[in-house]
Amino acid sequence: MQAAIVVLVVEDDQLIQSLVEEALADGGFEVAIACTGEEAAELPNATSPKYRALVTDIDLGRGKMNGWALARHAREDTPDLPVVYMSGDSAEDWTSQGVPNSVMLAKPFAPAQLVTAVSQLLNSVTPPQS
Amino acid sequence: MQAAIVVLVVEDDQLIQSLVEEALADGGFEVAIACTGEEAAELPNATSPKYRALVTDIDLGRGKMNGWALARHAREDTPDLPVVYMSGDSAEDWTSQGVPNSVMLAKPFAPAQLVTAVSQLLNSVTPPQS
Amino acid sequence: MQAAIVVLVVEDDQLIQSLVEEALADGGFEVAIACTGEEAAELPNATSPKYRALVTDIDLGRGKMNGWALARHAREDTPDLPVVYMSGDSAEDWTSQGVPNSVMLAKPFAPAQLVTAVSQLLNSVTPPQS
Amino acid sequence: MQAAIVVLVVEDDQLIQSLVEEALADGGFEVAIACTGEEAAELPNATSPKYRALVTDIDLGRGKMNGWALARHAREDTPDLPVVYMSGDSAEDWTSQGVPNSVMLAKPFAPAQLVTAVSQLLNSVTPPQS
Amino acid sequence: MQAAIVVLVVEDDQLIQSLVEEALADGGFEVAIACTGEEAAELPNATSPKYRALVTDIDLGRGKMNGWALARHAREDTPDLPVVYMSGDSAEDWTSQGVPNSVMLAKPFAPAQLVTAVSQLLNSVTPPQS
Amino acid sequence: MQAAIVVLVVEDDQLIQSLVEEALADGGFEVAIACTGEEAAELPNATSPKYRALVTDIDLGRGKMNGWALARHAREDTPDLPVVYMSGDSAEDWTSQGVPNSVMLAKPFAPAQLVTAVSQLLNSVTPPQS
Repeated sequence: MQAAIVVLVVEDDQLIQSLVEEALADGGFEVAIACTGEEAAELPNATSPKYRALVTDIDLGRGKMNGWALARHAREDTPDLPVVYMSGDSAEDWTSQGVPNSVMLAKPFAPAQLVTAVSQLLNSVTPPQS
Repeated sequence: MQAAIVVLVVEDDQLIQSLVEEALADGGFEVAIACTGEEAAELPNATSPKYRALVTDIDLGRGKMNGWALARHAREDTPDLPVVYMSGDSAEDWTSQGVPNSVMLAKPFAPAQLVTAVSQLLNSVTPPQS
Repeated sequence: MQAAIVVLVVEDDQLIQSLVEEALADGGFEVAIACTGEEAAELPNATSPKYRALVTDIDLGRGKMNGWALARHAREDTPDLPVVYMSGDSAEDWTSQGVPNSVMLAKPFAPAQLVTAVSQLLNSVTPPQS
Repeated sequence: MQAAIVVLVVEDDQLIQSLVEEALADGGFEVAIACTGEEAAELPNATSPKYRALVTDIDLGRGKMNGWALARHAREDTPDLPVVYMSGDSAEDWTSQGVPNSVMLAKPFAPAQLVTAVSQLLNSVTPPQS
Repeated sequence: MQAAIVVLVVEDDQLIQSLVEEALADGGFEVAIACTGEEAAELPNATSPKYRALVTDIDLGRGKMNGWALARHAREDTPDLPVVYMSGDSAEDWTSQGVPNSVMLAKPFAPAQLVTAVSQLLNSVTPPQS
Repeated sequence: MQAAIVVLVVEDDQLIQSLVEEALADGGFEVAIACTGEEAAELPNATSPKYRALVTDIDLGRGKMNGWALARHAREDTPDLPVVYMSGDSAEDWTSQGVPNSVMLAKPFAPAQLVTAVSQLLNSVTPPQS
């Protein structure tokens, strides 16, 4: 089990970035950080190993790709990718803008909620067929 | 129980339209039909009583609003609206384009699958608070 | 398979009683009717075969046992009994007054919703151990 | 939607065979019948179109392949195949002998339970990726 | 994310109180303690910020409000409040006395079970609409 | 709450054994270790208190009982026993070889995934009736 489970975290607020990173690291996940949706959207092809779950803020900067668009983009690449959204203002838009089988964490949330959400989504992905 | 449960069906293929209408009527639902997403998008404000669930095809005509966009639009209006998509070619896009807590019926499907999907989604909506 | 699956329906409104009875009979269930909670509360011991699911109205008459109390009583007897509530006014009280793993059907509802609710609850009961 | 959804029913009791066939046909499914597990185990490769769900009795004759073994065999071929077991005596063995995401219907059951079980399992299969 | 997620814990046994408090604090939750149901029942209106989940023992003292009654009371105030019950003797009464969408932890339980239960229930609450 | 929740871990790789043990201990579980399926299969009768959940590797040595067979054996003894499988190569066989209501963790996985899986399965077991 030397390989790690990489979770891609997309968040531009430094403080939340570190809280999220610490929570996931405590749960035994390896964290990759991106600050913008554009940066994140490039990652699947560039990184090795690929990330196994996406945790994204919704508002990623004015005029920039937001979390809703990023998740759709990532799911086009990996149809069963676990997706967790984090947001304060936009949580109420989840039922219209989110993807199926995702979790919306309304800020503020406790670190355990994030770890549980990521774990549960990963555990429910049917194992890949060779 | 004189009031009916109206299901809005958005489908431009006449044959499927009648199959769907018959299946839902057999289940005791009242059916409202729209042939385009644009027409459907106008309905919530115009009809009385409002529709309680949306069943929509994905491809609703070239250059027209498709089922993905229509469902997002309808959920903005009614955040917990039950949504069932029907499609042949586009079923694989559901995980990236669908809304949370929706059902994708890949064509062909049996009438009972549609009735079960609509019933299950309606039954899981938490009763409204007065 | 000569034995029938008996569903106990507790409802004092004649019209709804027959709609519910017809829907369940169409689904292949056998229906036993009680008009009051008190009458229903006596049934488990008296009937043979015992009923396998309970479908109950909430308001069962002034000063009478209501559907919330009846369901709790029935679950004391049969801890995994499928329970479906039907109500207009009281649907919003389900989250505080209902029992776990039950379904609330807000009136009006389509017959298929009732049949799906009863079937789903029955199918999720773990088979009994001999 | 001219293509049908074929459900393979494996049952050696003539009476139950016809009850099950009628229930599924009423739900709009097309039914293929096999009387033994061995016969059923040959079918996926021989039929066109392939069956989309398996409904099987457990006891399929002394010294013959039983329903538990048949379902495992069929899932090796089609990992996400919907599976519904029907049994009187063996229902209690489901938690140790059944496959994940299957439904156990203890006999007797109402036709609506079968149709709901098959529909629900089919509706929860993630649409295939091209 | 400076605001905390407050979990109200109602438990009169000092030892369990501290175990529960420690487990929740480790998960990043803030804990408010009440020793009786009566005390807890007053809290929603008095505290700021309001608690977001309720974790309650069942037996809260002879002649006192028990955990079943407290949870119903709290759900009347907040219909989608996450509720976790803890009990040794009374766990078997959960199916008749508990509220829908709650979790029963039979004592003894591991701290991780409590944190997972609270997190899962919080994560499944649909984000509030503004 | 002096009694502990014992989780039986069956794994012959020393490294994974200790990772799993540490993760579960951090979650507050007590861990019992067995290196072979045969050894594990003897445990339920020998240990006191009995284990409450089973976490097992699939490949437990050539010519030895594997994890699939062990889980079936354990479920015959305890029909609602929580089961978590861990595997690299065999994860894809879960849908045909696993038991109902189990979780498959494809290696590698993060410790939090294991703790969440065990907790979730334990929390969903209906409390026993006295």
